Parts: sequence; structure tokens; C-alpha cells
Amino acid sequence: MNVISDKLQVEGNRWIGTRTVRPDGADKVTGRAAYAADNTMPGMIWGKVLRSPHAHAVIRSVDTSKAEALPGVKAVVTARDIVDFPVDKSVMLGIQDMRWMCRNVMAREKALFHGHPIAAVAAINEEVAAEACRLIEVDYEVLPHVIEIEDAIRPDAPILHDFLKHEGKPSNIAGTMTAKLGDVEAGFAEADVIVERTFRTRPVHQGYIEPQACTVSYAADGRATIWSSSQGQFMVRAMTSLLTGVPQSNIKAIPAEIGGGFGAKTIIYLEPLALLLSKKSGRPVKMVMTREEVMRATGPTSGSFSTVRIGAKKDGTIVAAQGTFYIQAGCLPGGPLRGPVGCAFAPYEIPNVLSVGFDVVSNRSKVAAYRAPGAPLGAYAAECVLDEVAEKLGMDPLELRLKNSAKPGSKAAYGATFGKVTFEETVEAIRTHEHYKAPLERNPRPGVRRGRGVASGFWYNAGGESSAQVNITEDGNVLVTTGHPDVGGSRASIANVTAELLGIEHGRVSVQIGDTSSIGFSNLTGGSRVTFASAMVVTQSTEKVITQLRERAAKIWKIDPEAVTWENGEARPAGPNAGQFPPLTLKELAAKANEMGGPIGAGVQLNTQGADPGFATHVVDVEVDVDLGIVRVLRYTAAQDVGRALHPSYVEGQIQGGVVQGIGWALSEEYLYDRQGRLDNAGFLDYRMPVCSDVPMIEPVMLEIPNPKHPQGVRGVGEAPIVPPLAAIANAVYDALGKRFYSLPMSPPKVLEALEE
Amino acid sequence: MNVISDKLQVEGNRWIGTRTVRPDGADKVTGRAAYAADNTMPGMIWGKVLRSPHAHAVIRSVDTSKAEALPGVKAVVTARDIVDFPVDKSVMLGIQDMRWMCRNVMAREKALFHGHPIAAVAAINEEVAAEACRLIEVDYEVLPHVIEIEDAIRPDAPILHDFLKHEGKPSNIAGTMTAKLGDVEAGFAEADVIVERTFRTRPVHQGYIEPQACTVSYAADGRATIWSSSQGQFMVRAMTSLLTGVPQSNIKAIPAEIGGGFGAKTIIYLEPLALLLSKKSGRPVKMVMTREEVMRATGPTSGSFSTVRIGAKKDGTIVAAQGTFYIQAGCLPGGPLRGPVGCAFAPYEIPNVLSVGFDVVSNRSKVAAYRAPGAPLGAYAAECVLDEVAEKLGMDPLELRLKNSAKPGSKAAYGATFGKVTFEETVEAIRTHEHYKAPLERNPRPGVRRGRGVASGFWYNAGGESSAQVNITEDGNVLVTTGHPDVGGSRASIANVTAELLGIEHGRVSVQIGDTSSIGFSNLTGGSRVTFASAMVVTQSTEKVITQLRERAAKIWKIDPEAVTWENGEARPAGPNAGQFPPLTLKELAAKANEMGGPIGAGVQLNTQGADPGFATHVVDVEVDVDLGIVRVLRYTAAQDVGRALHPSYVEGQIQGGVVQGIGWALSEEYLYDRQGRLDNAGFLDYRMPVCSDVPMIEPVMLEIPNPKHPQGVRGVGEAPIVPPLAAIANAVYDALGKRFYSLPMSPPKVLEALEE
Repeated sequence: MNVISDKLQVEGNRWIGTRTVRPDGADKVTGRAAYAADNTMPGMIWGKVLRSPHAHAVIRSVDTSKAEALPGVKAVVTARDIVDFPVDKSVMLGIQDMRWMCRNVMAREKALFHGHPIAAVAAINEEVAAEACRLIEVDYEVLPHVIEIEDAIRPDAPILHDFLKHEGKPSNIAGTMTAKLGDVEAGFAEADVIVERTFRTRPVHQGYIEPQACTVSYAADGRATIWSSSQGQFMVRAMTSLLTGVPQSNIKAIPAEIGGGFGAKTIIYLEPLALLLSKKSGRPVKMVMTREEVMRATGPTSGSFSTVRIGAKKDGTIVAAQGTFYIQAGCLPGGPLRGPVGCAFAPYEIPNVLSVGFDVVSNRSKVAAYRAPGAPLGAYAAECVLDEVAEKLGMDPLELRLKNSAKPGSKAAYGATFGKVTFEETVEAIRTHEHYKAPLERNPRPGVRRGRGVASGFWYNAGGESSAQVNITEDGNVLVTTGHPDVGGSRASIANVTAELLGIEHGRVSVQIGDTSSIGFSNLTGGSRVTFASAMVVTQSTEKVITQLRERAAKIWKIDPEAVTWENGEARPAGPNAGQFPPLTLKELAAKANEMGGPIGAGVQLNTQGADPGFATHVVDVEVDVDLGIVRVLRYTAAQDVGRALHPSYVEGQIQGGVVQGIGWALSEEYLYDRQGRLDNAGFLDYRMPVCSDVPMIEPVMLEIPNPKHPQGVRGVGEAPIVPPLAAIANAVYDALGKRFYSLPMSPPKVLEALEE
Repeated sequence: MNVISDKLQVEGNRWIGTRTVRPDGADKVTGRAAYAADNTMPGMIWGKVLRSPHAHAVIRSVDTSKAEALPGVKAVVTARDIVDFPVDKSVMLGIQDMRWMCRNVMAREKALFHGHPIAAVAAINEEVAAEACRLIEVDYEVLPHVIEIEDAIRPDAPILHDFLKHEGKPSNIAGTMTAKLGDVEAGFAEADVIVERTFRTRPVHQGYIEPQACTVSYAADGRATIWSSSQGQFMVRAMTSLLTGVPQSNIKAIPAEIGGGFGAKTIIYLEPLALLLSKKSGRPVKMVMTREEVMRATGPTSGSFSTVRIGAKKDGTIVAAQGTFYIQAGCLPGGPLRGPVGCAFAPYEIPNVLSVGFDVVSNRSKVAAYRAPGAPLGAYAAECVLDEVAEKLGMDPLELRLKNSAKPGSKAAYGATFGKVTFEETVEAIRTHEHYKAPLERNPRPGVRRGRGVASGFWYNAGGESSAQVNITEDGNVLVTTGHPDVGGSRASIANVTAELLGIEHGRVSVQIGDTSSIGFSNLTGGSRVTFASAMVVTQSTEKVITQLRERAAKIWKIDPEAVTWENGEARPAGPNAGQFPPLTLKELAAKANEMGGPIGAGVQLNTQGADPGFATHVVDVEVDVDLGIVRVLRYTAAQDVGRALHPSYVEGQIQGGVVQGIGWALSEEYLYDRQGRLDNAGFLDYRMPVCSDVPMIEPVMLEIPNPKHPQGVRGVGEAPIVPPLAAIANAVYDALGKRFYSLPMSPPKVLEALEE
């Protein structure tokens, strides 16, 4: 369903907004698409990582001599080979602090989690490399470990890092973040109704299909080529450069197709190790993680321990909101505080807000970004409390949201003053949707109870650096290059935009992702930024090309370029010259490129601005099997302001994908540790992600309210859809059972336990 | 030896003119450089070409059914699969006519030479593909054939193409070219001395080390990727597009490293066949020529049959010159007439010139470009006749050249009016060189006679379309991309230019060759154009980058960009602001790129102009073994106006390489055919190229006379060095033996025969 609320750049489009064939489709369907592990090179050897068997241990020594002596072993690297960033000085790359990154890629002073890399080996095959790992002798001093947030913040908790201080004392609290508006205590004093609840969530993994993998070839002249899939070839280049000391201009990072990232591939694990192994061995080195390694040693998202308190007047006006969010960072600082702290109350105009986040380290793998990092944690707590507030006030939960929704000029606690706000439209879209109005048969069969829940969500969205190049081929077709991996259809969207702007057949446009040497710097595919930013730089590049085409036609006709228009793939004389010359097509102008000055093409490199935030409101119907404790999602409708859907199928896919991941988070996914701090379910058999039969067809309601700051009205859409589902499903389960769950996942054992109470 | 004649941009250079480490060195020395045959793909199969066993035959039918039925065979293509360009309408791609190219890639109506492709097969391995070729049944009607020019232009010669007419009749003369100045008959009437001679040369092969090879992957969505080495990835894309009907935007041509081309790789042979085989089979297809296929079926340069007549006054003033050049085209039109017709007399100011070329087809493989195509043929004839004129006049041959040398304002018969002419300087450099003044011991041992010869040469040089992109990495280093294969050190030269312009360490610049989707259209590496053109577009791109850097510094300092200079890798406040702020380095500005507007980088796409011609004068000492008939080159000095040697080692290499190829042409290389028109010496054992022990260290005299039309003063240098050697060596052999040779090569049998006369 596609609700068009504004006429800006919608009418008369031929390609924008249509479901054109995906440029990567044939390659992916026929197996021609090359993912990271698909690259091989002559002379290539295999790298393998030795990982800590302990959750927490001092590394007294690492003896690699026996491993090095094993026939077939070509190189061994340890933390000594990685560039050390001392803990007392921050060196940032985007939001990543290299102090922590160098210790994440390989344990330095201590092993901080079960699975922490201790050394890496390259050998003639994987078996020899694995055998060599077994021959490395590590002298560990095992330390007490801590896994859960509540345990880690106790005064007597084992401390992971002596140098981290909180309130003057060594602590596992690595940092805090506060967002504040008004006077929250004064606000609560005005409230007629106050609800305060505490919530717990478990870390969940992004669950991408493709494990981390790379091939790195380091040549004798100090130049390296990296093939890997990531959410940013420029991030791969920069981070590998920082961790190995090889300058960026000596590294070419080639982006492979990516089999899912969801934020987790905005950092690297293997690339610096493979580069150093290649440097030592003089051979190309390939490293591919097993699924178990992915689960154990790449960052899931944070678990959380949060308290939210909301106060409202009888008429539903929210007067105060307070949130305290303890967020798991994993073993090194850097949990996504900005997500819960900034997003939890952002959809609402609340005069008094105090939102505080705590970054808590424990003996788990360092967390990585996951789709709207941290925002679902905050929304889960805030939107469940809102449901209780609505219940206490006897208001429809959507009415409560509408009454308090942010408006143009509203201030958000995280610092923004909103311009255009499109939150109301998402609530209204659900409130008036047939799904919300449909009756729900609450007890269709014995042992089954049904309920309905709603929740909303907010995500910042981002702009940032992007580069594009648009070139015209000699036969008058179009090549477009951008610099960020395509995780959600950016190639398809860009092809639509380019064909539209040039007024030509869609099939005449080819879009590719350039490597780090082929295109200007482009920031990560993340923050829901890529379609927004790349459509902007591609538009500017295409406009430059059109200017060139008009100038060339003007030169041929010997008239002023201002008197030439570009329409439907042709230059036409305009104004006083209209009709004086037959139009010149793109093909004709391309054929004359040489005599008219040279090749036609233009590029743009820009720090894009104007990526306004995204809002979403969801409604879900669930069915609880009271005998088995299984919660099934029956129907799900997700409304979102999508700005402009350049290629609607991909926008729908983003919404559906975000919701499905939210369903897993709410109902079944969690990391389970044993008493020794070892991950117990490091595999897809024991770590329960939703599969096809677990989810209904999610209905996306795309509200196309063009973003006025973008040439096509694009707004980021990839992250907002994962924000509401946790709360929406929790509210629906409450509606079904009359019991509220304050801890995720709402898995069968927990549901049965609650029903037995 | 490096003679600097002009101070333009020479003083104060830190990198330009220095012998920096070559960017491709480590890769090539360690075997990491990937040539065309080094690429493999999963599922790849092998292609093989069935070639005609006849020199001339009508193809009545081709039955591929048995081949297709052979297990392991995946696809067969014939001429029916290639786009047909009817013979009555020319379709040009650069200087190539697609009428002939489509018939060269695969025989259509007739097999025109021994080795002409008839069909191509792709199979699971090369053996099965070869077996399938044997199973293809071709019904040939064998026709009389003709190999030599003199035979081909006889009235009763077998005619290759009925549609080719000369003087109204079917003919093997496919075309003519005339260059004219004044009245040649009136000129000869004024002459005191006239010398007229007829010369013959044999086709010689470019002799590149790397055979033609490619891998092509055609995907189900109609998009193809081509890996191949060539002298132009954009030529590969365009020509393959034309011959297969796949639009250019659906083809990505990736340039591999190239193991020599020398002009021969400015056209393609295998790529369209491999693409069509890949399309039919759905598999990537690799094709690699054997050396025998390279010799038999890729174009050598033309043989020639030429008459030159020169008339001079007693004082040495040349009053008339006439040349008639019959040039072998091979089996299809397109011999390099422009070389002999335009270049033969170009170094001289001669009032009356008539130069006529004839393009003669015969049953040989179609010729391809070879270093200054055709120019050595003309210079051989003209410069040998000049030697006789000098002798008759009793003048030093260099004095004769000086007396008649072209000057600024001189008209050349080919149409140009010269601006700056640097021919005199090359003659003077040899005349005053220690080599020319050194005494020559003419009979050092019994059976040995020594002689010295000189000759000059001219080549047009070219500009044309080039594109470049210069990007700054986040850590403040530099990436440069250009679009033409590096056959002679263009990466090294470009690195010098970029480091110089930016004022930074050379090691901070990386240069790469982009594929057709990564960089704007760039014409062939040929015509001695690439260093000229790419330095020009890289300079303009770098200047744009420097403007960006100055603007950003100005923004930081809040002053006018005009008041910021860029020196030694830093922005500095200038004018009234001088010294007011500390300089900002490239690294510092790169680190601030994001906040200052985005990534730093710029590209330029240009049809470059101003590539003025190149002149060369050579002196050679030879020794003839009168018993064995062997001519050995003892000493060789080659003076040339090189404009500006951006990287002198490569300029020297170009001069030395050109001379060595000229030595082979003069003394030992030739194509030998049997009576059935089959090539008898299709291999390096029987086709005698010079090896290391055949040549002395060639001494290059680089005259650095900057080209005023180029930002660094660059002039093309790659082709001029092959123009004089044929005549210089012939003149030296005459000086040694007192016998003139009018036919090349001056191989031992011919020398012995002459001595026996």
C-alpha cells in the first residue's frame, strides 16, 4: 500500500517510483555475484584465528614457536603486530575508537571474552592452520568474569579495565550520555498518572547469511589489495590502515557483494590480520569465519536494563518522561547509547525529559551496530510504558500518541528542533487502517488467545559523505558509480533516478559500486543514509552532465546554452530558437563527444545534509498458544514516512525486513551463556531466528511525504522499521494474556512461566 | 645522456625528471601482476578457434553439428553470430572500419588467409575444445591466392574482394592516399642531382611477449565483463559492443597488465568470440592464443614496395621529392598509408613533394599498427636516397639534413604548417656527439668490415580523449586514476607529476588504471599520446584539487581563497594575511574534509590538443662478417626531442626499445610463406627477433625541449625511435661494404649473395 501525501516530484515520473528489474538480480540468482569468500588468488594461503577459551584472563605470554615450525605454516601474527593505540588517548574513526578496535581485533593485555582472538596463523590450507592454532601455547591467568549488566554494575563486580573510572572509581561503566529538557521532577509533580517500569532485553545477533570473510594480497612494494564484504570499503581501507600502519593510498579495498550486514559490517575483524599475515608470508591470505566464530566473536547488539517513567495529565498530556538505560557494550566501550537516550521519547512533544544512558562493559564480545543501534531498546521500554499510561487513562493508545506527537518547532531532548514532522501521519495511517479497525476474535480456539498491540518509533537518519560519477559511453548510454556497498537496493534506486533525470530508457543505465581507488570517498552504508546521499550526489552529477550536453548542443547550433533545454533524452532549442533545429539525442551528442571537446561525464563529492528523521507506527496481532507458550504473529502492518520510494519494492523490503528482525528480537532470539562465560548457542540451530513459517506477510504502508531537503524527496527508510516491533508485540501479548512482559525474548519458557503465575 | 635546451619547468623540480621507483615494479617482479591469461573464474570453460588451412577459399558451408554433439562442448559460434557490417557502408571506430573488423574476427564469405578464424568452440577444457574444432566440417572452394605486393597489383592477380575497385576495375588496391606540395616535375627540372631507388621491406611482427588472451563472463541479464590486455579497455568495450550488439553500458572491460602491444593490441581478436561463447554457454569463457596463432593470425606490420626520387641542387638544396609507396594491408583494407606518405619527407623543407600511397590487399593476416605505423617504411626509402644524394654531392649526410631541415612556418606535404620545429637540434646533437666524431677502424680484423650510417625520422604524435580522477584519501594521501593501459611507464610519469604539483612525497601518490566503468572515456594507448594526454588531464584535475584545498583553508581561516597559496604540500595565507596563520598541510586539510564540505577530489575529461610532432636522428656503427654475412650493430646513438622526460628511465627505454625493434626489422625479421600461402616461420625459433646478445647498449640522447602546448612540456616519445634505424643501418652497411641494399632484412643469405656479386 502506497499513500501519496504530497505531489512534489511524483507526477509524471517514468522510472522513479517504479519496480524496475534489479541490477544485481541476475548475478545473484545465477550465482555469478562474487561475495567475499568467492575470491581466490594464485598462491593463496588460508588464515585462521586462535581464540580465547576463557571469558576473562590475563595473557601472560604467547609462544608461537611450535606453530611456526609446523610444516605448511607460512606466518603467525599476534597483538604485537597490530598497531597499538594506548588506552589514554582516543583516536576516532567515525564513531569507532581505535583504542578499543585494536584490542577487539586481537586481545592485547587480556582476553576479554570467550572467543577473543589471541593469534592468527596462515598456512597452506585450513587444516594446517587449525593445527598450528592448537600448537600455540598461551599462558593465561584466568580471572573472574561477569556477563550480565546487573552483575557488572555491582560494586564488587570483577572489573574488566582498571583505566575505566566512573564517579572516580574503577568501574565497568565506561561512559554515560544524557539528554535533557525542562525539569523532569517538576513535570512529574504535575502528573495525574505516573507509570514506571523496568525492562530487560538480551543481546541478539544481526544474523547476516554471509560470515565475515576476506582475501588480502600484500605486495613487496607495500601495496595491499583487500577483497571483503563490508558496509563500507572506505571504512575497511581506513581501519585496516590504522591497525596495520599501511597508508590508505597503498590499500585498495574492493567491495564484494554483501550477504547481509545490518550494521555489523561497519567494523572489521579479519582484514588487518589477513594483511599482516600476507605481509609476513608474501602470499595472498584468505580468511573466512565459521558460523560459530560469527556468533561468538562478532558483535551482536546490546542487551539492556532500562527503567522508564512517564507522567501524564488526565487529558492525556504527557508532562514528564524519564529513562535510565544501561546498555551492554560488550568487552570494550562503545555501546549505542545514542539510540535509547535520544530516540525513546523523540516522537513526542514532552516539556520535561531526562534520559540517561550508561555504557556497561562485561565479558562478552564487543557489540556492533544493528539497525537503528539501540533505538529498539529505548522504544521497547517507552512504548510499553505508554501503553500502560493509555490504559490507566482509558485512552486509545494511538489517540494518546496523536495527542502528544511532536510538531514543527518541537524540541527533542537529544537537541534537535524539528522542522517538518511526519509522526502524526504514521499514527493516523495505522489508526485509520483496516487492520486497526478490524475486529479481533480473541479466543478462536481452545488454548489460544489473541491480542493486538501498537507502538511507534523514531530514527535519526543520516547524510554524510558520498561521491558519484556519471559517465556517458560512446554509444550514448550511461554508467554510474557510487562508493557505498549496496545492501538494500541503492543500485536499483540510482538507476531509476538517473534514467528519470536524463529522460532515457532504464536499460541504458548501468550502476556499479566502485572500489576505494575508483570513486571518491564515500562513508558507510549505514544510518539509513545511502539512498538519500547517493541519490543526491548522483542527481548533482547527472545535472552537470545535462549541462555539458546542453552546452554541446548549443555549440553545434551556435546558440547560447541557456537557450537549450533537455527533455526526454534530447537537447532542444528553446526560447527564440525553438523548433529551429531538430533535437539532438543523447546518442547523437555522445557520438560527437570527441569533436565537441572530449568525453562526457561528471562527478560530485559531497558531505550531504538534510536527512530528516524517520517515524514509524506499527500494529500487530498475535496469537498465544497457552499450552506451548508459543507466540505467533498473525498480522502485521507497518506505516512509515518513507519520503519518496525511488524503488518501492526495496522500501517495502526494508520495512518487512526490519519488522521480521524485530519479531525475532521480541520472541525468540537471545545469547545464552554458561557459568564459565562461554556462549552456549553459537549456531543457527540453537540461536532461534525467525524463519519463513514464523512470520506472516508484513504489510508496509509507505507514506510518501517528500523530504523537502532532498532533490527527489528521499528519506532514509532502513532502520526505523526495527524500532517499534519489540514494544508492539509486547503490547499485543499483554492484550492477549492480560500479563505484561518486562523481559525479552517472550520465548515459550518465559510465557509458560508467566501463565503459571 | 640528457641535454636540456630550455629552462621551462625544469629547475626546482623535485620529482619530475627523476627516476622514481616504478609503481608496477614489485608486482611484475614478484609475479603478482595479473596479465590477461591470469584471470580464472568459477565455472569457467575454454574457447578455441578453428582456423582456415587455406590462404584463399570460399566458405561454402560450416557444419558444427558434430562438434556440438561432442561431450564437454558447451557452445559453438560462427560468423553468423557476429554482427555483420555490409561491405558497402563504412562504420568507423577510430581508424578501424567495422566492415573489415567483423570479417577479420571471423571469416564471413571467404577465408582470406592461412589462419583466418572460421568458427570458435567453448568446452570444458582446451583439449575437448581442440577436438571439437577438428569435428567442424567446412566445405571450402579453394581459390588461387596471392601473397606479395608485386604479385597482388598485377592485372592478372587473383582478386580478394570483388567490391574493391581501383581505376574502375576490381583490384587488390583498396585505396590510395596522396600528399602534395608545389609541382614535383618542375622541381626535378631544377635539380642538379636526382637519385631514384626502389625498396622492399617484409612484414615484421610486433613480437610482444604476451599472446592475445581474455576471459569474458556474460550474465543472464545481458551484462558482460571482459578481462583482457589491450592498448585500450575502451576500444575493447566499443569494438566488442559493435561486433556483438551488446550495448557499451552493459560491458565492463577490465584492463589487465599488458605484456607488450606496440600497436598490435589496438584491435581485438578474441573478445567478441569469447563473449558470444559465454552468452551461448552461460559460462565464463577463457581464450588464450598460442604463439603460433599470434604469428599466423594477428596483424604484423606491412611489407612495402616503394620508390623514392629526390632531386637537389649542387649546393645541397633539395628541390623535389617523390615517393610511391605500395603498402600491404593484409587480407582486408587498412594499411598504414599515413605513415610513409606523410612522414617520409616531413623533416625537410622541400618546395615540391608528391607522395602517394597504395593500400594493397593480399592473402595474409590483416596488418595491425606497429609503432609509428608505416613511418619506418617511408623513412627507410627516403633516408637511404638522401644518403646517396649526399654522397653524389660530396656532402656530409648530416650537413645535407641540416641544410634542408624544416623550420617554423615550413609546410609539410601532409598538410601541417609547423610551429616550433626541433629537427635541427636532433641532427646537431648527433653531428656534435662524440660517437659521430669518433674514428671508425674500418677493417679491424680479416673478414670484418665496419661502417657508419645516419638517418632521421619523423612521427606525428597524438593528443585525443583522456580522463583522470585525483582523489585525496582520509589520511591525506593521493589516488590517481587514468583510463589507458600503461605500456611505457605512464603510471610512473603520472606519479611524478602529481607529487610535484602537490608538493608532497612521491610515495604518497598511487596511480592506477581504471576499468571502463571506473573512469571516463579515454582513447587508446597509441600514437605516443598517453603520457602527453594523461599528464595534461591529471594536471588539470590536480589543479582543481589544489583549488579545493585553498578554498577549504580559506574557509578555516575566514579569508578569501585568492589570498591562499599552495606550496610544498601546504596551504599558506598570502598577501596581507601572510604569516597570520600557521600553514595547513594536505594531511590536516584531508582530516577536516568532512566538516569542510565533503571528500576532496576532482576529475577531468578532455579531448587533449597540442601534441606536436617528434623528430629523431640516429647514428649507428655496424660490423659485417663477410664470411658469414652477419651484420652486427656495434654502437648506436639516438637523439630525439623528448619534450620533457617526466621519468627519464622510461623515455630512455622507449628510445632503446624502438631502436632494437628497428634493428630486428633491418637485419633479421621477416615473414616467410610457402607456395600454398602458408606461413612457414610462425614461432620465435624460426622468426628471428633480436635477442640481448644481438644489440649493444643503445645510447639515448634526450633533448629536453619543452612542448609549449603542454603544462609540463611533454612530447610523445614512443614511436619516433623506430623510424630512423632501418635507413641508418642500411646506410652503415653500405658504408662498410660499398654495396647498397634495397631490400630488408639484410639477413646473412642476402648479404652473402650481395658480396658474391
